[in-house]
Order: sequence, then structure tokens, then C-alpha cells
Amino acid sequence: MLSIKRLSRDEAFIMIAAAEKKATAIGVPQVIAVADESGNLIAFSRMDGGKSSSIQIAIAKAFTSGAARNPTMFYNEHCVPGSPSFGIHVSNEGKFSIIGGGVPVYAGNDCIGGIGVSSGTPAQDVEVADAGVKALEAQWKRKKARTKK
Amino acid sequence: MLSIKRLSRDEAFIMIAAAEKKATAIGVPQVIAVADESGNLIAFSRMDGGKSSSIQIAIAKAFTSGAARNPTMFYNEHCVPGSPSFGIHVSNEGKFSIIGGGVPVYAGNDCIGGIGVSSGTPAQDVEVADAGVKALEAQWKRKKARTKK
Amino acid sequence: MLSIKRLSRDEAFIMIAAAEKKATAIGVPQVIAVADESGNLIAFSRMDGGKSSSIQIAIAKAFTSGAARNPTMFYNEHCVPGSPSFGIHVSNEGKFSIIGGGVPVYAGNDCIGGIGVSSGTPAQDVEVADAGVKALEAQWKRKKARTKK
Amino acid sequence: MLSIKRLSRDEAFIMIAAAEKKATAIGVPQVIAVADESGNLIAFSRMDGGKSSSIQIAIAKAFTSGAARNPTMFYNEHCVPGSPSFGIHVSNEGKFSIIGGGVPVYAGNDCIGGIGVSSGTPAQDVEVADAGVKALEAQWKRKKARTKK
Repeated sequence: MLSIKRLSRDEAFIMIAAAEKKATAIGVPQVIAVADESGNLIAFSRMDGGKSSSIQIAIAKAFTSGAARNPTMFYNEHCVPGSPSFGIHVSNEGKFSIIGGGVPVYAGNDCIGGIGVSSGTPAQDVEVADAGVKALEAQWKRKKARTKK
Repeated sequence: MLSIKRLSRDEAFIMIAAAEKKATAIGVPQVIAVADESGNLIAFSRMDGGKSSSIQIAIAKAFTSGAARNPTMFYNEHCVPGSPSFGIHVSNEGKFSIIGGGVPVYAGNDCIGGIGVSSGTPAQDVEVADAGVKALEAQWKRKKARTKK
Repeated sequence: MLSIKRLSRDEAFIMIAAAEKKATAIGVPQVIAVADESGNLIAFSRMDGGKSSSIQIAIAKAFTSGAARNPTMFYNEHCVPGSPSFGIHVSNEGKFSIIGGGVPVYAGNDCIGGIGVSSGTPAQDVEVADAGVKALEAQWKRKKARTKK
Repeated sequence: MLSIKRLSRDEAFIMIAAAEKKATAIGVPQVIAVADESGNLIAFSRMDGGKSSSIQIAIAKAFTSGAARNPTMFYNEHCVPGSPSFGIHVSNEGKFSIIGGGVPVYAGNDCIGGIGVSSGTPAQDVEVADAGVKALEAQWKRKKARTKK
């Protein structure tokens, strides 16, 4: 039997809260999804004004970063005509996103989930997704520091 | 031009919080989705232990109750072989759910969204979805009372 | 962070070997799939003579029993017109199977995966799936007995 | 009436065993699928640690190499904008993979199936798929040698 590490529901919403805060700061209402290490949705928020076309994109970015364990930008850079990974953008019934804005969450060497953001430019989406991941990592550090005392 | 009434992001999460509270009270980790009046996802939470097969079902129940403006149980009762609405359960590329647990949200005569719950028995799912709707209605009443003063 | 129990690759093939042995004994070439606790495929074998139409069915049965944590026969019994769970057979983009032959695997209270069998009658499929589960449970008992010594 | 040559279940697992051995040697837990000459799945193994997003990709690579009778890399090289085969990567409802890692199996002039590997880099996936094919060809040679004696 295997023992798998997975983002909890509360951790997913810590990420969403921080991502929404960053989205508000840069003035872009975003659609934000968090998936687990298997790519399955844990948490989701579409801010007022977020695009309805971004719902599936955000969920796909969360799936991709969580299940494939890389930022979607990694695949974006490699998935160009003539490259051997070209075509990955149409895999998984269209649920594999190579658009910037999906970022995996690692606990040590284990990918335990991913966050996907959509509605802004890819650069804005990445910035908001990163804010979500950093907030969770900061929370982990605070917890660890408390435990050590 | 039309002016459409729609659940806000904050209202969606008021519903999810109340639904999660009820789910915890009855001891069933649930998957909860809230959609707008067009059927598009606004908010989502999979409680720790919620089934991964319930993700699409909860989203489908929210879509159905929000967009079709009836509880999914309404369709469940009518969608039986020989009835003229039989077949609706396979419409919308499988996203039309007739399983109990989807409940629309009305503001007066306007359906402004819907909540869908999945992972328990249909009766438990309905109970948890109802708790979400009631919490939002109670909040509206409190606001109205404050405004009158 | 959550810690999730999941069937390993080797455990999945212990189940497939036992299921194939039973299928051979009853003279029905079967298609056998094993999924993890999230419903994702781990192992698969189509015996020579197994039906090609059974590929998706076996995978769907494994998904359903692993992710929804019940035998597919449970849903078969409940999913009848007029029942509040009628309609579940068309959920999850057709990947939710209510045909007999999907059986979950439990380690204590945790569902860690599921096995799905297709090509025979539902009764034969259940018999073969059960043989797979029992073989794994027997192996666990032997291991436990060895550890105690 | 036609007589079709097709990979057997046992031959498929000879390929998977050799592919897994190579995957272990290069330190990449892989997802491996084997399809028949019609593109239908015969055998599948997701090694512990293989990505869940690779399940559909490996199956698509096996389908493509078995049914289209070429390595997926062949299509990767030709499927570039401006080339007359550009667009094939979105055919077959997304099940046609042009990512490196799908390799057909030939018995003389007949394509009798294909193997698809996913989770590593395309180069690693090709290396592991090739190991599967070579192991089966070696086994055929040994059998032939024995028959001659």
C-alpha cells in the first residue's frame, strides 16, 4: 500500500485567499482553482467579474500543475511545433493546459497539488498563482517555527 | 439591455460555509458546488474525505438547479420512463443532473443561482444543500432588518 | 496536509492475477481494470478473447468502485426510475458504471482503490472481481501473520 | 474472411515488464500502455509514482502507434504548421498522440500493436517504449531458434 501526501481543503483555501488578495491588488478579478496530486478539484472561486470562459481553463491549469507536477509555463515553453512534446496541449480530453498560470505545490519532493488561475494575462495569472503557493509555504514555515519552540 | 440578478462570490461562500457546517453535523464529508443563473461555477469546496466521483456530480447539480431553476429532485420525479420529460438526464452532455441534492436560489421571482451537493445519500445531499440556501436567505433577512432601522 | 492510502502497482497486479485465474476457471476471457482511491487507472489486462467493448466498461467499473467507494451493484440496485439517485449512471461523462462487476478495496475504513471486470454476465464479472479482492486480502493476512512472528 | 495478426495478452506483458525494468534503470516511474492493431488497450501498468496525467497520454500513444502503424515521433516531425498533416494531433477525439513515446510492434510487414509510455521526457519515454519492443523481438528470436533445433 502506498501513502500519498495531498493538499487539505483548508490549505487549498489558504491559497485561494492569498491569490484573491493579490488579484485585488493588481485589479484583475480572477478565476482560481486548486486541485490535488491526482488532478482532482479541491477548491474553486470565481471572483465577481471573473470570466466564465476561465472556469474550465483555471480548472485545467490546476489539474495540469497538480497531476503533471510542473508549472503550465514549463509545458508552454516545450510544446512548440517541431519539439517532441508538441501535442501535449490536446491530451487528457483538453484538460491539459499549457497556458501560463498553473503552478504545482510541493512538500519536499512530493507534489501534493496545484493551483490554476485564469482571467488576466498569462503573466498576471502566474503572479496570482504564485501568491497562492507562497502564502501556503509561509504558513508551513510559521507552523514549523511554532513546533520547534 | 437586460439586467441580470446573479449570486455574488461572497454569497456563494456563505452558502458553502453553512453547507459544510451541516455536513460536519451529520458526519458526511461533502462535495459542494455553487453555480450562477447561467449554470456557471462560482464556488466549490471538497471537504477532506469527499469522494472524487462527486466533483462532477456536485457541479452538475449546481448547474442544473441554477440554469433550469428547479431542484434536481423535481426532475428526478418527472424523469421516469413513459413521462414526456424522460431523457432530460442525458441532455447537456451529461451535465444535467436529476439526482437529489441540487437546489436553486431565488431572489423573489428570479433564480439567481443554485447549489449542488454530492457524496452522501440523496436525502443527505438535499439536507446539506438546503442548509446552504437557508443560510443565505437568513443573511438577506438580517440585512433587510438592519436597513429598515 | 492529508495522508492518503492507495493501492500500489504490485497490489493491483496481485488482484489481476487472481481475477484472471478465476476467469480461466469459469471459462470466460475477461477484461480487468484496477483503479486507485481517486479512480485513476493503475493496472489493466484484457485476456485473449476479452471484448473490446469491455475496455471502457471495466475501466469505468474500477473508477466507480474506487472513487465512489461502493460496489457498482450498490448503485445498480438504487439507480432505478423514481429513486432519488436515478441519473447517477450518466454522471462523470459516462465514466460512472452501475453495472455489476466493480468492487472497492478497503484497508480498514479507507477505500484505497477498486477493481472492475467486464466481458461476462454481471454475475460472472462480480465473481471474478471478488476473486481479485479476496486474493489481496489473503496476501495482507499472510504478511500480517509473518510480521507477528 | 481476414485473419488478423494481433499481440497477445502475454506478449503485451512481456513488453511491459521490459519497459518497467528500463524505467527503473533510468530512475523514472513510468506509465505504460499496450494496444492491439486496432488501437484497443490490451495491457497497462502505472508504476508507483507515475503521473495520473500520463494515463490518458500513454493510452493515446499506444493507440496511435498500434492503429496508425508509425512511431508517434513520426507524426511529431510531420505535424508542424504548414505541413499537409498538420492537424492530425487533434483527430480521433484527442486520442491521436504525436508526442514521442509511442512505438508500433511489427511482425514482418504486419503491425500487430503498439506500446505507449508517458511520465518522463519524450526521449526517456521513447527509450522505455523501445526496450519493451526489443524484449518481445528477442523473445521471438529465442523461440524461433528453439524451434529450428
